[in-house]
Amino acid sequence: MSAGRLATFTAGGKTRYGAITEKGVVDLSARHLEWPTLREVIEAGALVKLAEESGGLAADFPLDAITYEIPVPSPEKIICVGVNYPDRNEEYKDGQTAPSNPSLFIRFPRSFVGHGAPLVRPPESPQLDYEGEIVIVIGKGGRRIAEADALGHIAALSLCNEGTIRDWVRHAKFNVTQGKNFDRTGSIGPWLVPFTDEAQIADIALTTRVNGEVRQQDRTGRMIFSFRKIINYISTFTTLVPGDVIVTGTPTGAGARFDPPIWLEPGDVIKVEAEGIGMLRNGVVDEGTGR
Amino acid sequence: MSAGRLATFTAGGKTRYGAITEKGVVDLSARHLEWPTLREVIEAGALVKLAEESGGLAADFPLDAITYEIPVPSPEKIICVGVNYPDRNEEYKDGQTAPSNPSLFIRFPRSFVGHGAPLVRPPESPQLDYEGEIVIVIGKGGRRIAEADALGHIAALSLCNEGTIRDWVRHAKFNVTQGKNFDRTGSIGPWLVPFTDEAQIADIALTTRVNGEVRQQDRTGRMIFSFRKIINYISTFTTLVPGDVIVTGTPTGAGARFDPPIWLEPGDVIKVEAEGIGMLRNGVVDEGTGR
Repeated sequence: MSAGRLATFTAGGKTRYGAITEKGVVDLSARHLEWPTLREVIEAGALVKLAEESGGLAADFPLDAITYEIPVPSPEKIICVGVNYPDRNEEYKDGQTAPSNPSLFIRFPRSFVGHGAPLVRPPESPQLDYEGEIVIVIGKGGRRIAEADALGHIAALSLCNEGTIRDWVRHAKFNVTQGKNFDRTGSIGPWLVPFTDEAQIADIALTTRVNGEVRQQDRTGRMIFSFRKIINYISTFTTLVPGDVIVTGTPTGAGARFDPPIWLEPGDVIKVEAEGIGMLRNGVVDEGTGR
Repeated sequence: MSAGRLATFTAGGKTRYGAITEKGVVDLSARHLEWPTLREVIEAGALVKLAEESGGLAADFPLDAITYEIPVPSPEKIICVGVNYPDRNEEYKDGQTAPSNPSLFIRFPRSFVGHGAPLVRPPESPQLDYEGEIVIVIGKGGRRIAEADALGHIAALSLCNEGTIRDWVRHAKFNVTQGKNFDRTGSIGPWLVPFTDEAQIADIALTTRVNGEVRQQDRTGRMIFSFRKIINYISTFTTLVPGDVIVTGTPTGAGARFDPPIWLEPGDVIKVEAEGIGMLRNGVVDEGTGR
């Protein structure tokens, strides 16, 4: 299982990719110069092959000698789905029907850090909030992908803390763009887990903890828009290509949902965890202070 | 003046960049292998130098032998500002105050075609609409750029027909992402005009015509959010980098504003024109039919 975890990382002053194993980190980028990044590995359909290959190789770096980067460094697209799990209040109080199409917004890679790096709270707002989510990475591109075929287009799974500057998502009349794109306010990682079987995502638990306290907890079986529907819907308007990242929406329980809201602060530790994928951990610092 | 028009184009089966002059197209990419695309030219701060150099060179291609591509083929970001010119009805009837911050959304490069190529109406909707806009391309990157310094960060100007599938911008509860990102529904071009003087944008006329009929007409001096403010505001949350494309908002008069609305149809010709920048012309075809 551990051989199936492929990460992008910095070590020895260089960005590389490789396998995260119990015995350490196997540098696969040094062995596969034909593929500069995991995006090209995915394009070549070689993710599973690489994960298998790494099983027989010695580690090049100890686990604590690497700095994790976001797994696909420069995807063509990072598309995010809005809240995508039922709100228990809504379910039990007003029976409000689910929306018919997912809300979508786009984030730039520079709005994310890797596993272990701190999220950065900017001086413009104290309202840094967490959102734990499951990430799918496209392997086989396409347009107007049928729901029946959709899972065959997934190359890998990962996790996202889709960190948000909450007051800036309503800073203008429409669109959440600015509140979702402050530099280094979210995270993706720690790694890619190759996707080979629907059971890996059909009904897994997704949990977000802040300082050990469970804040979000739900199961993918309860998603409002399924993985199949998300791929089908997005590919209706845009051609998906290998390496595209889809952040599939968060359960209820972000800090904004509390009364009064609970924002993240320097020193907090957020852990996003999903069965079979792993655990994405990040601290928080104030911009410019490093703490 | 004509030496100051730099385009990305396909000729002889290859994507190139060069200068569009009266005597033809000068292939600058063949002479500057150190810069694979105009993005790297902009990063090197060499746009003006290249435009000047082309004045003394013979043309490599006749003007009608090239196919225009979008000027910066793979910018890190394409950020679009929502409606950004006063609505005359609002101005004269209800005195509604302008919003305090611009609405922003993101488009992927594949949602655009170059000058001369047809916009593509997808089978999902008949509501293809035009929006004529002025484009600024970032030369010098930065974060939290002061309004006073903002114009010094612009490398070049261009034009955009920010074509939109109107019913899909309200397809979900929030965000216009899907209606703004159907493949090949908008256009950018024809070229980049190097930016050297505020007078190039301070108060120029912007006009959109459909089949010769004026549909949108306004002046940049009336923009709700100035070029300075847009650069300042966007760079508050994200680090701008050379080659970033900002589409600065459209005047009133899109097809959706008519009663009943007037959507674009195959055979229509849309021209977006601005003083000193040029004229961006595109037809319309139904997807898959080529007409």
